Parts: sequence; structure tokens; C-alpha cells
Amino acid sequence: MAPQNISLKPIGHVNSPYKQKFVVPRQANLVSAGLGSIELNQDYADINSLRGMEQFSHLWIIFFLHATAEKGWSPTVQPPRLGGKKRVGVFSSRAPYRPNPIGISAVEYIEHYESSGRVLIKVGGLDLLDGTPVLDLKPYIPYADSIPNASGGYAEEKPPSKLVVVFSRKAEEELIANKVNYPNLKELIVQLLTLDPRPAWRVKSQDNKQYGVTLYDFNIKFRIEGKQTTVISIRAE
Amino acid sequence: MAPQNISLKPIGHVNSPYKQKFVVPRQANLVSAGLGSIELNQDYADINSLRGMEQFSHLWIIFFLHATAEKGWSPTVQPPRLGGKKRVGVFSSRAPYRPNPIGISAVEYIEHYESSGRVLIKVGGLDLLDGTPVLDLKPYIPYADSIPNASGGYAEEKPPSKLVVVFSRKAEEELIANKVNYPNLKELIVQLLTLDPRPAWRVKSQDNKQYGVTLYDFNIKFRIEGKQTTVISIRAE
Repeated sequence: MAPQNISLKPIGHVNSPYKQKFVVPRQANLVSAGLGSIELNQDYADINSLRGMEQFSHLWIIFFLHATAEKGWSPTVQPPRLGGKKRVGVFSSRAPYRPNPIGISAVEYIEHYESSGRVLIKVGGLDLLDGTPVLDLKPYIPYADSIPNASGGYAEEKPPSKLVVVFSRKAEEELIANKVNYPNLKELIVQLLTLDPRPAWRVKSQDNKQYGVTLYDFNIKFRIEGKQTTVISIRAE
Repeated sequence: MAPQNISLKPIGHVNSPYKQKFVVPRQANLVSAGLGSIELNQDYADINSLRGMEQFSHLWIIFFLHATAEKGWSPTVQPPRLGGKKRVGVFSSRAPYRPNPIGISAVEYIEHYESSGRVLIKVGGLDLLDGTPVLDLKPYIPYADSIPNASGGYAEEKPPSKLVVVFSRKAEEELIANKVNYPNLKELIVQLLTLDPRPAWRVKSQDNKQYGVTLYDFNIKFRIEGKQTTVISIRAE
């Protein structure tokens, strides 16, 4: 069979607190506080297309890895789980640099609704960058998709919590000031930073660098020393 | 964000015993005897791209629903699980008639190898038509993909075995004659037919029709009476 080009058009996009790749969790459900939504694009904004979704606890997002799509792919990659040093095949990894940059994420379904002509689905445990183009949505079907006795090779275990997260006095005040509009901001920061989002080579160098990252519309500054990360400030951008 | 077209090229295709949509199991892993392979297309036939896959027990096939892609989609569909009478949203179903006709299947990994320049992965529990274009392969990662407490709505339970499968004397002889080359043919036929592959409206009509279906290169004829299906003949085509 001759390989032919297949042309697809996004049906929607992701609204996510994650504005930069740096802090995006490496798989779905690692950060339960990662709340966001899928918004159907205008051509597909029909609430009927989601009828019955409320029967399911989880759904699959099939998405386009837009932030890295231009960078091409290579037959082997170095997964962060192997310390960024050992090579495995691209198809034996979930690395974004793939021949067809498509990702799949099983996320928690919360609710779906229509609001001034927009059709949205609230989800939890998100691991996607803000603006990610969505190609398809499917219900998570436990009898087919959940294989509890599957073996996961080098990604068998959930990545452990590596860091204790503490907040400076200033950061605590900023959390309180924004609690009404962003009630889960503290939990989200804790869950994200405890996983240590730094690239593998950085972790080894025991750096003293101040990091900055954007979550929602906040610029979060933090520093990692040993096994502790201190959130220095949380500023509205 | 303006929706843009995304162009993809298959990386491989499926070699499957299922030559017609009629008998293809409705999800992966319903029919463990559904053995087949994924073959990487010439441009992607690099065995290194699969290095480490043997660490995993299952893998995801992301594929193009080529047999139904031309037929378009509709916002609601009538899943066979609901007797083909109740409508749910297309995104709340795994129906093939989707805006972007992409499917995902978690199948059992058996082995991968290179043979005269071809790169193949043997898999089990397949639910894909022969020749299905493959867009991507990913390892199944239990901590992210397996959600044992997920609820599956109208597709909560595995479809039950509905029919007892018996073989005519002639069919038994044909199985014996082909046992060396097709050792799992009997098991495959039993597993497929016990699920009752007929469309929902047919099941209700208690038909007496003789069905024919192609598996591998055999034409299988069978008849369903009440709760029993009789395999009449198994002929090499």
C-alpha cells in the first residue's frame, strides 16, 4: 500500500494553566490540580457531539504536539526517565519528536457546557500546553483501555515526588490575594514543583539558578536548593 | 487560534487476519487470538526506532480509519452497545465516523524483528482491518494510561459472549488440514463468533441467513440459529 498524505483539521483547542513547556507534567494525571478545558472550535461547536460524555469519568484527548512539531524527529531519543543519557526508539517512548507529532492523554472528565456559543469541557489531570490543537476526543473505555497488569518498562513507576515545596512570605501573601479567582493555584504549584520540572542535566548540576515560569497569568519565581524548592514570588503579568 | 490543516504520513500499516469490517472486534483485547503485525513502511523501516519496546507488555497503535474515512461524520451516532437505537455524541463514542478519523488501540506486544529489510512488530488482541494505515506507535504506560477505577458509561462492561460456536464436520476437517500454517484459526473463529458480529438490527430479526466472511485467506461460512452459530465451511480463497 502506498503511503498517502492524510489531512486533518483541529476540532478544538486546550485552555490550560501551562503557558510554557518547562512545567508541563510529563504524563496526564500526575498533577490532579492541573485543571483546564477543551474548547470546540467554531466549526464543531455543537453540544450534541458530547451527548452522553457525562457517563464517563475519563476521556482521551488526541492532540497535535504543536510546540515541537517543526523540530522534526529522530529514530532514537533520550527519555528524561533514563536520566537523559540512554537511547530508546522513538516509538518506544512518548517523546514529542515523532514522525507524526500526535499525543494521547487520558484526563479526568469534570463537566461540559455551552456558554455564549462556546462549547467547553472541563477536565482535570491535564498535561497539555495552553493552545494545544485537539484532533479528537473519545470516551475512556475501561475494559479496553485499562490494562492494570501491563508492564511499563523504564516508565513502570510514577515519577516520585522529589522536592519539598515551601513558599516565601511574599509568595504566601500573593496566594492569599488571588485565592478567590485562583483557588487551586497553591496546590497546582506544589504538585508541579514537587516533581522537579528541571531537565535531567540540570538536576545533576545542583544549580542555584532562579527559575521563572508562567502559570495562568502569573509569573512564578522559584529556586531549588538540595531537596527543597522555594517559591520566591507569584506576580500577575 | 485559527484552525490549520495538519498533514500526516503513515509510518506503517497493519497486517491482520480481518479482511472485512464485518468481523473486526469492536475494541482491542476482546479477541486475544487476533494475532497480526505492524509493518513499518519503507521510509521508516529502522529497527532502532523500536529499541526498548520489548520492555513493555502493550503498545498503542494510533491509526487512520481508512475504510470509513470517506463517509464523513455526524455530531451524533447510534452505538451498537445501545442496540443501535439511542443517540450519543460522536465524541462520547468510539464510532469510526469522526471529524478526524483517527483511532487508538492498546494491543499486546509480542516481539519485533527485521526480516529481509522489513521491520515488523507482532501483536495480539488486534481489532484492526488488514491494511490499516498506522500513524504512530507508543508504549502503553500503566501509571498514566491504566485507570482501573474509571467508569465507562454505556460501555462499562465487556460485551458478553452471546453465542455457542459449533463446527460442521466439514469445517472441522478443513481446520485440521490447515493446522500447521494456521494453528490459531479455530480459536480465532470461536472468539470472534461468540461475540456475535452481526449489526444490532440483524440480531433482533432472528435471521436464518448464511453469512460469509474472510479471515486470513479463508472464506468462512456460518449460520446463526438462536444462541448457536454453526461454522459450515472454511475454504481457502
